[in-house]
Amino acid sequence: MIIVAERINATRKSIREALEKKDREFFVHEAQKQEKAGAAFIDVNAGTEATKEVADLKWLVGSIQDDVEIPLCLDSANDQALEEALTVYNKKEVMINSFTAEENRIKALLPIVKKYDALVVGLAMGEGGIPQSVEERMKLVETLVKAVDEYSIPREHLFIDPLVVPIGTDQNQGRLFLETLQAIPQTYPGVRTVCGLSNISFGMPNRRLINRSFLALSIGFGLHAAIIDPLDDKLMGILFASEALMGRDEYCMNYLTAFRAGRLNE
Amino acid sequence: MIIVAERINATRKSIREALEKKDREFFVHEAQKQEKAGAAFIDVNAGTEATKEVADLKWLVGSIQDDVEIPLCLDSANDQALEEALTVYNKKEVMINSFTAEENRIKALLPIVKKYDALVVGLAMGEGGIPQSVEERMKLVETLVKAVDEYSIPREHLFIDPLVVPIGTDQNQGRLFLETLQAIPQTYPGVRTVCGLSNISFGMPNRRLINRSFLALSIGFGLHAAIIDPLDDKLMGILFASEALMGRDEYCMNYLTAFRAGRLNE
Repeated sequence: MIIVAERINATRKSIREALEKKDREFFVHEAQKQEKAGAAFIDVNAGTEATKEVADLKWLVGSIQDDVEIPLCLDSANDQALEEALTVYNKKEVMINSFTAEENRIKALLPIVKKYDALVVGLAMGEGGIPQSVEERMKLVETLVKAVDEYSIPREHLFIDPLVVPIGTDQNQGRLFLETLQAIPQTYPGVRTVCGLSNISFGMPNRRLINRSFLALSIGFGLHAAIIDPLDDKLMGILFASEALMGRDEYCMNYLTAFRAGRLNE
Repeated sequence: MIIVAERINATRKSIREALEKKDREFFVHEAQKQEKAGAAFIDVNAGTEATKEVADLKWLVGSIQDDVEIPLCLDSANDQALEEALTVYNKKEVMINSFTAEENRIKALLPIVKKYDALVVGLAMGEGGIPQSVEERMKLVETLVKAVDEYSIPREHLFIDPLVVPIGTDQNQGRLFLETLQAIPQTYPGVRTVCGLSNISFGMPNRRLINRSFLALSIGFGLHAAIIDPLDDKLMGILFASEALMGRDEYCMNYLTAFRAGRLNE
């Protein structure tokens, strides 16, 4: 599992406050903790206030990148913020999160993806929002895949997020997500999948229990990358166990290593 | 999910001791606790000592059955023990656990299943043990299905256990099990699946973490019935959450009811 570590996200209050104070030490520590916990990418989200985001994302990238080995995932819907941040970014690999199946988003973002040879997250969302059937969602997936093809971006660089809608609003949303997840690499070999999990449990009690079960199910249906908090040991325990159970952990080594490190809390 | 409650099993020391003392009150309490926790069947296993099992299983059935509403699952590989127990059994529905794809087991057990109009668990195991590929395991499933057909037992009465082999011995066993699980109702509509989970984690550390992840995955792959301990709230929490996520819990009512009853421990 490719873990995109989600903690540095300015929609969280503690992160927003540290960002206002430009507390570089705090962010380096957040990034290093997540790297140590198994992250493959550190997601960096500087919030959604247009006036601040451009400068803040650039500052975050500059503040963190030299103190971790792993690459960053630049998380923004603002092309200007992404472009500015990329001017200071100095690592070879980068992930950009995200574009949608909307024409203006494709035209704005994919030239940047191409220019920086980036990995990119595409959301199964179009002009009409998030469709409510596997078939319709797969039509948007087709739009995303055709878009990267058109810009000569390798399909291996595309991670599609089938988009999670809370089961509290519609009991079929879990299955719809999982079936779309499974269909994506079957229909488009080489294309991988990614998701943020926690929206599935919005409005429900004991959200973390639902999130953990959903991670296991998503691994069962073939999820390639997860935007999660790698410091959540209970979630990570389910991840290690589920990967071992799906034959995705050779000799169960990751599971056993996590156990020996005292990380497998029940 | 059809929950077959597993606690009354004389391979467990506390159960064996209570059975030696013929502690009826203990067994009634065990059965009622499991019924209250959501069991659909109370599994009753009187151990494997041939000299004692016939009398003990009969005694257990007679001791428990009048104090629970739900039916029992008679768990024995000893046809004589099953037949004797069935002479005192007074409920309409009964499950018999189990027969295998071996000719002598089929001939010994299926006439009893037919006579009592029982539900029956068939294990995907033959003369040569447990085969190590989905295809070979499905051949044994075919033998089981043909056997019930031959005795005019409805396919809806058959629950097949694809058999769990520890991932500690072979990292592919989780996936092999899950793929067999999924193939059974696809290949034989009407036939359902059942399993005991815990063997999957044998020899591994933090077994309950693996068992919980495996339950979520099994629900994802369509498991119909689980032989589990319904008093294990953490396992049941994963069960309720996974069923809701797979659209198998209308309006998430079971999940929400379990939450309101204080049963959803993280």
